Amino acid sequence: MDGFFSRLSQEQKNKKSYLCVGLDPHLDRLPGQWKGDAAGVVPFLKEIIDQTQEFACCYKPQIAYFAAYGLEQQLAQVISYLKAQYPSCPVILDAKRNDIGATAEMYAQEAFKRYQADAITVNPYMGGDTVEPYTRFTDKGVFVLCRTSNDGAKELQNLTVGDGQPLYSFVAERALKGWNKNKNVGLVVGATAIKELRKIRDRFPEAWFLVPGVGAQGGDLKAVIEYGRRVDGEGGLIINSSRGILYAGDGDDFGTKAREEAARLQAEMAPSF
Amino acid sequence: MDGFFSRLSQEQKNKKSYLCVGLDPHLDRLPGQWKGDAAGVVPFLKEIIDQTQEFACCYKPQIAYFAAYGLEQQLAQVISYLKAQYPSCPVILDAKRNDIGATAEMYAQEAFKRYQADAITVNPYMGGDTVEPYTRFTDKGVFVLCRTSNDGAKELQNLTVGDGQPLYSFVAERALKGWNKNKNVGLVVGATAIKELRKIRDRFPEAWFLVPGVGAQGGDLKAVIEYGRRVDGEGGLIINSSRGILYAGDGDDFGTKAREEAARLQAEMAPSF
Repeated sequence: MDGFFSRLSQEQKNKKSYLCVGLDPHLDRLPGQWKGDAAGVVPFLKEIIDQTQEFACCYKPQIAYFAAYGLEQQLAQVISYLKAQYPSCPVILDAKRNDIGATAEMYAQEAFKRYQADAITVNPYMGGDTVEPYTRFTDKGVFVLCRTSNDGAKELQNLTVGDGQPLYSFVAERALKGWNKNKNVGLVVGATAIKELRKIRDRFPEAWFLVPGVGAQGGDLKAVIEYGRRVDGEGGLIINSSRGILYAGDGDDFGTKAREEAARLQAEMAPSF
Repeated sequence: MDGFFSRLSQEQKNKKSYLCVGLDPHLDRLPGQWKGDAAGVVPFLKEIIDQTQEFACCYKPQIAYFAAYGLEQQLAQVISYLKAQYPSCPVILDAKRNDIGATAEMYAQEAFKRYQADAITVNPYMGGDTVEPYTRFTDKGVFVLCRTSNDGAKELQNLTVGDGQPLYSFVAERALKGWNKNKNVGLVVGATAIKELRKIRDRFPEAWFLVPGVGAQGGDLKAVIEYGRRVDGEGGLIINSSRGILYAGDGDDFGTKAREEAARLQAEMAPSF
């Protein structure tokens, strides 16, 4: 099987899209009759997926939204549905896991074996030996948090470290050089950190970035495309929108509203392919 | 209700123990007839709890070992059992969670509402705004990863940052000063990093440390007690052993072997009370 990034790149070219649809089902925001009802999660997300799949190169379920409500079975159902209906469209499990090696192996099993995810997000704070249990799955993708999209991200990530670069930049270097022997490591870089995104792209012209923070968090889509994509046309960029698509409508029209929003985002991306 | 640290301190004084028993049920290491059998997890852990409770001031289930096998219900059962049988003995959910605020709220719900844990471990890389959704539960404890016990911990955590101190030390400062307005934040500091543990204790004489890494990981128990505890006799120290207790025996004697190991550890701790 081709590596994760090869498969993703093919899907991006086919759809002329960097769009990742984030699946963050907040029960209180489910539309219409499903509001507050856990039984609405699977039909809601299936409809979102069906409506957006023409425009999305991948999907990213956020495990916290399922775990908070005890909806592990529903998460498994949603991923199974994606794999059955749209097998060329990868699934990134947004879990931001990290722990010592023996425990990281358990988290890797959770993501890659239990849920059959194609990729996972992980946290770098504990060091490269805690990332290796994921990267050893050579056909899976591993996105290391580098510069996140939240307001407080700078507090640690923009600290200047020993050799004079910011911590996020040190992490980018370690992740893409030191931890990447299986060529399956990418970075998470927030759309709200365009300056940092641009610097990392300049240093690592072939790297893959998963970019959250457009839409509800206010990131600038045009700037992300301009500064985030690989200049060789091989993609290198995944732009996530969660709330902006999921909750584009809050009534019976939620599916068509989600479709319209996904189409709008993809239309902004298509010219760069 | 008293805060988490007050309750924990009382339990420590009553039992003259800093011992936390880590509940990491690896199916392949379950004893005797339960080996490889998920149905053995709950009875195995109940027996471990009953045998060790005389010597343990708290328990720390590691969620990855449950999540890998889809054993969320079993995790809930084990925590419910602890709360029903030994209500004065707190439960720390080892989850090392972290995400942006809206998602962190979901993880806090998972830990504190779904599982009824008394405390959680969290990762600091994303900054203080991602820790606040946990600390706002004022009766719960929040342990921030500071200097972890794994071999690769130094790769990021011992980097010198802007103001000349190592990153772990900067994290200690932010966590205990900046993020601790509800006085419910502690640190995770590995037993394999005695030098760092000592430095943090010198700077923060009243802080609480959760210290993994004695036993299977090779940390020195005597040194952890000497340099890790508060000198005012108010505890400040939680020493975790997981594999060293859980798998002290691998046959029908696993319970008595676990008890013997817990008793041995507590006996080393008692003189400092």
